Amino acid sequence: MTTRDTRSSSVAIGSHKAYLTGSRPDLRVPVRRVHLTDGNAVTLYDTSGPATDPAVTTDVRRGLPPLRHRWIAERRADGTGDVTQLAYARRGVVTPEMEFVALRENVAPEFVRDEIAAGRAVLPVNVNHPESEPMIIGKNFLVKVNANIGNSAVTSSVEEEVEKMTWATRWGADTVMDLSTGRDIHTTREWVLRNSPVPIGTVPLYQALEKTGGRAEELSWEIYRETVIEQAEQGVDYMTVHAGVLLRHIPLTARRKTGIVSRGGSIMAAWCLAHHEESFLYTHFAELCEIFRSYDITFSLGDGLRPGSIADANDEAQFAELRTLAELNRMAKDHDVQTMIEGPGHVPMHKIKENVDLQQELCEEAPFYTLGPLTTDIAPAYDHITSGIGAAMIAWWGTAMLCYVTPKEHLGLPDRDDVKTGVITYKIAAHAADLAKGHPGAQVWDDALSDARFEFRWEDQFNLSLDPETARAYHDETLPAEPAKTAHFCSMCGPKFCSMKISRDVMDTYGPGRADDLSDDEIEAGMLAKSKEFAEAGNRVYLPLASD
Amino acid sequence: MTTRDTRSSSVAIGSHKAYLTGSRPDLRVPVRRVHLTDGNAVTLYDTSGPATDPAVTTDVRRGLPPLRHRWIAERRADGTGDVTQLAYARRGVVTPEMEFVALRENVAPEFVRDEIAAGRAVLPVNVNHPESEPMIIGKNFLVKVNANIGNSAVTSSVEEEVEKMTWATRWGADTVMDLSTGRDIHTTREWVLRNSPVPIGTVPLYQALEKTGGRAEELSWEIYRETVIEQAEQGVDYMTVHAGVLLRHIPLTARRKTGIVSRGGSIMAAWCLAHHEESFLYTHFAELCEIFRSYDITFSLGDGLRPGSIADANDEAQFAELRTLAELNRMAKDHDVQTMIEGPGHVPMHKIKENVDLQQELCEEAPFYTLGPLTTDIAPAYDHITSGIGAAMIAWWGTAMLCYVTPKEHLGLPDRDDVKTGVITYKIAAHAADLAKGHPGAQVWDDALSDARFEFRWEDQFNLSLDPETARAYHDETLPAEPAKTAHFCSMCGPKFCSMKISRDVMDTYGPGRADDLSDDEIEAGMLAKSKEFAEAGNRVYLPLASD
Repeated sequence: MTTRDTRSSSVAIGSHKAYLTGSRPDLRVPVRRVHLTDGNAVTLYDTSGPATDPAVTTDVRRGLPPLRHRWIAERRADGTGDVTQLAYARRGVVTPEMEFVALRENVAPEFVRDEIAAGRAVLPVNVNHPESEPMIIGKNFLVKVNANIGNSAVTSSVEEEVEKMTWATRWGADTVMDLSTGRDIHTTREWVLRNSPVPIGTVPLYQALEKTGGRAEELSWEIYRETVIEQAEQGVDYMTVHAGVLLRHIPLTARRKTGIVSRGGSIMAAWCLAHHEESFLYTHFAELCEIFRSYDITFSLGDGLRPGSIADANDEAQFAELRTLAELNRMAKDHDVQTMIEGPGHVPMHKIKENVDLQQELCEEAPFYTLGPLTTDIAPAYDHITSGIGAAMIAWWGTAMLCYVTPKEHLGLPDRDDVKTGVITYKIAAHAADLAKGHPGAQVWDDALSDARFEFRWEDQFNLSLDPETARAYHDETLPAEPAKTAHFCSMCGPKFCSMKISRDVMDTYGPGRADDLSDDEIEAGMLAKSKEFAEAGNRVYLPLASD
Repeated sequence: MTTRDTRSSSVAIGSHKAYLTGSRPDLRVPVRRVHLTDGNAVTLYDTSGPATDPAVTTDVRRGLPPLRHRWIAERRADGTGDVTQLAYARRGVVTPEMEFVALRENVAPEFVRDEIAAGRAVLPVNVNHPESEPMIIGKNFLVKVNANIGNSAVTSSVEEEVEKMTWATRWGADTVMDLSTGRDIHTTREWVLRNSPVPIGTVPLYQALEKTGGRAEELSWEIYRETVIEQAEQGVDYMTVHAGVLLRHIPLTARRKTGIVSRGGSIMAAWCLAHHEESFLYTHFAELCEIFRSYDITFSLGDGLRPGSIADANDEAQFAELRTLAELNRMAKDHDVQTMIEGPGHVPMHKIKENVDLQQELCEEAPFYTLGPLTTDIAPAYDHITSGIGAAMIAWWGTAMLCYVTPKEHLGLPDRDDVKTGVITYKIAAHAADLAKGHPGAQVWDDALSDARFEFRWEDQFNLSLDPETARAYHDETLPAEPAKTAHFCSMCGPKFCSMKISRDVMDTYGPGRADDLSDDEIEAGMLAKSKEFAEAGNRVYLPLASD
């Protein structure tokens, strides 16, 4: 379903990289500008970073330019108080990162500051990841998409993971989680961070478990703490912490159909089981907040007890953990640490709204970050679709960021094509939600593409689509000839049956572009007149293609 | 995204064709039975017809056995009153077709009869299509999926179209519309009908236009009538009729972004424009009802003014036509003719419910049959996904049948893989809606697959999935070895990290299968005990694979 394209570093066909400049010369916000054949241009949000800027030569070994280096240094110089974006927002400061985001989302910088201060949005930027282009996650901004990479047990090379990350951002991933668990875990993460234009998230527990040789019961706060600091120093922007899995919650999963399906959740459950003690992530959470605050790492409070099947959706185990996450959310905020809450999982459509409503209520509108949810369990190999349905709905109802699901979910490790399919499916879900939420400016994109479609500007249609290469390739399968791309009919219907063609004849009845200025009576009259001309002209609705 | 499989006539891997027998020996309802490795079996709805029954040798040139031949003959013999299923239902008769459907949907025959009598459901069965296996379309039954075939302007062979139809039903298409417009249109339809186990729908207007050489203004009631009778004699089960496009509606489309996108709608608009007269489909609708009644053809009242873009959704043009369709629906019912109403199109998520609610109210709950709707315009090449989102939602809210959209929508003609992808995407949407509607028995399928997943019964997972071949292929890409299919871990995490594995250890704490009988206190106690054993056993959470 995707056309092969190895040029993840090339700018998308038919569009050009451009920058919006802010209040200072070093504040340049990247955008993708699609130039249309009618002379207009459409400006789109761009996550692909310097890799798609022909003016920048990127070298994986040297990493990306440290965009935010000076901003961070300047703040260190003044050196007053906490360094988190939440702390600055609460002090009334609009940081360059906030201004960057404001330009990116086309809103006022003060609005960005206030949403962060209220805890309704997070701006994940570790002080040690100056390469990242600031972005914001909150229900009052564009819905974001996360893509997971990571070699997992079956190892792939460091270069492959960096390439997957770059590939994911090219198609629109707003953040990337590195879930590597194999060898070279530290090196892989280092390369990914130094080359990533988007915030990087991790699950430190996976690396901590590596250190115990996979023996959950040998995990300890000390091992975990050391791992978090190692990753914090590298520049990880947000970390999933499964601190909500409490000893008393575990029995609640005993009657489930699919028990505990979160790796982090099951590891902590195994630890609690082995020691019959409360989770060290919970008992040491305040210390963890101190560490996160000093680097401005954002919490992604993991839902270790999320449902793994339709049967287990919205059950007591999940909601009990959610109440604990709400408590941890408050504690993190008390430490000026930015926080988002992770969500399910597998949820049938009629239970999705209850799920997001409860999270928003209990967690004081902290950004919800959900995996799907999958709306049915019967379609392995198509779970990007079973979950894309749930993702669009839960985002409409308030989820701020969607974690993508690829066709390989439940079956294997995603390859390049799976990553692309997952990202594009989730960009569709996110944009459908932006439209449903009436996000200002969201419909401009749809309108531009629909205009191009109605005016048979095929090249513009391709270039405005989420995947220009595949759209063009599908069209060419039926009508390969170049003239077909300027033909005034659709390849589905052919010249005689094209409804767009007929429809335009109907519209021309009222004079091109005049309809807006006419009353219905004038239109009616114009129609009668046109019907006469029409007969005189020999009643030709379908003009031969040549005369178009 | 789909694995090539040319055996559209073979029974799906891991399952067997079976039959439920009714009150008479010639009433045999096909089902697909999936035999699981744990000795259980799951019975699934089967649309694939005799082609997947090893006991039947099908020959495309001879067509399928005329399953319903005797039932129709018996009714002709008694010869009292109208022959439509609606007429029988209103007379209190439960036909063999109704009993067939009742067994298929696992409900009482009287319930089927009453839903048809109330006009809330249709059972499309032309008396001249005895090969079809009865199925029902109504919001109180399983959500159905239609697949479009048809060679369109770019011609493909008759055999290809028959193969496409068979292929579509193999993957779960409940009905198939033959939208052929090229040469051999009559022959193609004949072959499709004689070999189709599902109801066949058409848009007679397309063939009528062929007869005028594509000149819409030369269309007439006589040409159209003759075409309808030709197709009725062949056995077409339901026909899309764009009788709701009235002269006065056309000006309402003048201010639209994408005008009229329905081919039928635009053809009728062109006719009205050329003659400045009311649509002959509207003025002759009563005569059309007489014809439909004598063959028991079901009306699918076309939405010729459906929106073609997000910008045009739920506008006055569409709703004005809907009010006309409501009037025609009443007229058809007065003639004992079964009727469903077609719907959009392109609709953003927040406008979908309004659309279906209004249709249900105005059309007295007549079955709604919608195309998608697409929830955004920005993803050509992925419109099976943009529309699968809308389809799942609108079906949850009351749509009875979903017309599929393939990845080639707006771009070209679907090939075999596109047909398969479209059907599977829409089976997902339909099933997700069945779950959300709480359809009795719908979740049995999800539960069976989730049990297999949790118990690492890989083969059962594959065989229970909508597309066993692709699920198996994706798994094998990562773990090709045969033992991997019995391995107690997922290919994503590997043996050490598998959460399912850990989770099962946690569950075993309470004794396999014992959890249901225990109080939370007992579970708590058992957990403490287990944690001791656990320590004594050397705290091994992860057993070596060999010992599994």
